[in-house]
Amino acid sequence: MKKIGIVGAGLVGSLQAIMMAKKGYEVQVFERRPDLRKAGEIGGRSINLALSDRGFKALSLAGVEQKIREIALPMYRRCMHDLEGNLSYQPYGVNNEAIYSVSRGRLNQILMNEAEHYPNISYHFNKTTTDVDLRNKEILFKNEDGSRERVAYDKLFACDGAYSAVRSRMQKVPQFNYNQQYLTHGYKELEIPANPDGTHQMANDCLHIWPRGEFMMIALPNLDGSFTCTLFFPLEGEMSFASLTTEEKVMAFFERTFADSIPLMPELAKDFFDNPTGHLMTVKCSPWQVEDDVLLMGDAAHAVVPFYGQGMNAGFEDCTVFHELYEENKGEWTNLMVDFSDRHYKNGHAIADLALDNYIEMRDKTADPDFLLRKKIENKFTRLHPGKWLPLYSCVTFSHTPYNEAVTIGRKQKKIMDEVMTNPQIHDLWDEEVTMQEILRLLEKEQSYA
Amino acid sequence: MKKIGIVGAGLVGSLQAIMMAKKGYEVQVFERRPDLRKAGEIGGRSINLALSDRGFKALSLAGVEQKIREIALPMYRRCMHDLEGNLSYQPYGVNNEAIYSVSRGRLNQILMNEAEHYPNISYHFNKTTTDVDLRNKEILFKNEDGSRERVAYDKLFACDGAYSAVRSRMQKVPQFNYNQQYLTHGYKELEIPANPDGTHQMANDCLHIWPRGEFMMIALPNLDGSFTCTLFFPLEGEMSFASLTTEEKVMAFFERTFADSIPLMPELAKDFFDNPTGHLMTVKCSPWQVEDDVLLMGDAAHAVVPFYGQGMNAGFEDCTVFHELYEENKGEWTNLMVDFSDRHYKNGHAIADLALDNYIEMRDKTADPDFLLRKKIENKFTRLHPGKWLPLYSCVTFSHTPYNEAVTIGRKQKKIMDEVMTNPQIHDLWDEEVTMQEILRLLEKEQSYA
Repeated sequence: MKKIGIVGAGLVGSLQAIMMAKKGYEVQVFERRPDLRKAGEIGGRSINLALSDRGFKALSLAGVEQKIREIALPMYRRCMHDLEGNLSYQPYGVNNEAIYSVSRGRLNQILMNEAEHYPNISYHFNKTTTDVDLRNKEILFKNEDGSRERVAYDKLFACDGAYSAVRSRMQKVPQFNYNQQYLTHGYKELEIPANPDGTHQMANDCLHIWPRGEFMMIALPNLDGSFTCTLFFPLEGEMSFASLTTEEKVMAFFERTFADSIPLMPELAKDFFDNPTGHLMTVKCSPWQVEDDVLLMGDAAHAVVPFYGQGMNAGFEDCTVFHELYEENKGEWTNLMVDFSDRHYKNGHAIADLALDNYIEMRDKTADPDFLLRKKIENKFTRLHPGKWLPLYSCVTFSHTPYNEAVTIGRKQKKIMDEVMTNPQIHDLWDEEVTMQEILRLLEKEQSYA
Repeated sequence: MKKIGIVGAGLVGSLQAIMMAKKGYEVQVFERRPDLRKAGEIGGRSINLALSDRGFKALSLAGVEQKIREIALPMYRRCMHDLEGNLSYQPYGVNNEAIYSVSRGRLNQILMNEAEHYPNISYHFNKTTTDVDLRNKEILFKNEDGSRERVAYDKLFACDGAYSAVRSRMQKVPQFNYNQQYLTHGYKELEIPANPDGTHQMANDCLHIWPRGEFMMIALPNLDGSFTCTLFFPLEGEMSFASLTTEEKVMAFFERTFADSIPLMPELAKDFFDNPTGHLMTVKCSPWQVEDDVLLMGDAAHAVVPFYGQGMNAGFEDCTVFHELYEENKGEWTNLMVDFSDRHYKNGHAIADLALDNYIEMRDKTADPDFLLRKKIENKFTRLHPGKWLPLYSCVTFSHTPYNEAVTIGRKQKKIMDEVMTNPQIHDLWDEEVTMQEILRLLEKEQSYA
């Protein structure tokens, strides 16, 4: 029986632990931080996340979907706030689908509690991975007291996040390609507290966006009636985190830019200076494995910027894909990790690119009437011809189409919609049959090329 | 007086040590390996290198140019070997310029000996950098006996090569962008020994190339009458290092592909299996500095594949650029490293791209008559209108134009030559005035866009 090591007790590490325990393996999970359930910690950065179909599928395979649904708040639409505080809406799905706001901390706790029901899973906290001895298959840890330790593994899953220590070691393996790129924008979390009666101050079935072209603020609802806001904003320059140096400047900036949010955030200036400024990094690498022994999963394999709400979903999908491959192989490990990497790494690259593109969409295009019209046309066509068109956003968020294929589909759709939008009468004809026929014609033309 | 730390006693580290000692600083150089002068080692991979104008300029600033010229063999031309062993030639320069074959080991020895003439330079060997404490400005070393040590610096130059330990530490600094990409081809060094009388078996004023489309072999002359050959070849696949598993297969492959080299290499099969297969990595990163304290130079900042013969030259040019910036700043350190990075990192990216492109040129295009005709046309035009055109290769190799500008110039030239080559009579008219006039016309057209 193979000994499974997992580095990282975060979302993906804990889910993969459950998946492997279900197959009967002895699983040891090693975590650099203390047990977040004891410390009251919630494990790092973003405190709520958007969960969608890919994530739920993996959770369902692990048998925890229902428990998670209970703490998840559906968001059916984007709610855009303009400079005057006027609201407009854009549905996420064509058939009333939603993405779900969940607390990262609570989700992680549930997964860990669930994992600990399995007698063949053990958690080991305060273990900092310093190195991996790839030849002898041992993880090297530093303990809290400074003592050092080696733990053997047969198969190792590195689920240790965007700053993965295991991946650092892999970077020294020949033919390991690695790329980390930061945005010149960073982020800061702010809070819209609940009303005194515990209700939300804004509609809680939306993801709120204040699109401002070069930057934006968003807000996701929490179960306790609050919203977590995130300001995405340049790190340096005339209008930037670096230039907002005083309370006066912050308040003046918000008055000018997000006026309708000010009454909702009594602690705005305090939060702004108390909360750290986060950085936004994209990681692409390949292959994801060393020999057939060590495999990167989740952010360790593909850290993405948060603008598609797919970071966690992509990580959970890694667990699904590994599970499916394992079943296909009938539990035979030979080449399993190699095949996983070969089959799946391009999807990691694809979601990284999609997430980067979506920043432009969220901060800029959601305030652009032509973009919103495009979406309406696409949605209408999808409803009329459901087998022929699934908008890119739906394909990424509400389907299980590999991300890499979604990119190809999206490119074709963009080409078609670019042509549709050249019709000077499109604003009058957008929901007429003639427009739907034109899309059908262009689709057939595209397919004849393929 | 600032304490200068340099990590890496290789070519760039030793040259930068001399440069800084000349300015009067206390310089400590730390090297992971033992002293190569004592061990008889020659410090890693490629045992000869091509030195050209950028390298000589830096060596001249350091006062060691003459000593290096004495051990350098000029190569004026590419000598192409076809499948039948027929030779053809292509000059490197327009005015009989040469690139110079030098031994990496001897070059390094001379630089180290020269450095040790300065009482304010000290070398410290067998010091493995394990980390850098960026806040307290200390380098953390592991000694040969396993003991650990911290050494303080005021300014740190990281000249520790393609697998830089300092850069590994910098990767954890927010906003540090980093990219390492391997070719799917690797390399193996082979030897053509000297004749019994110590003369060379082939012309020693050429860089020899066996261009074979998808791969190639090259040979550079050494002072002792030998040549160092390097086979650049796919790592995996039907025709690859992985597939050449027996002496028979190797010999059959060479018979088929490099027949004229076989009589020159009596130890071919032995060398092939004794010598390791090397990997080819490109590193691009930015910024090159942390605060104003730590600066990457040479391969640590920009590891490039060897196909433009510019790796060492680019590293030496870093020393020139730093020196020039220091002089401009009149010895004032404030912002010096930041300015260096801002001004120069794009040149590192540019030479990395140029080197990748040149693999195609060397292995494929040097066997293509149209490509060779292009070069002849360009050379003729350059001779007629020296101020108006410097071929890209010359611009990179025989000028001090920043690499990034060379790329822009090269792109314009390619566009013009693409158009010139569309003339169906070009093979007859290539050295006629009408062709020269056409280039002049296209050049003016290009300039009017600019």
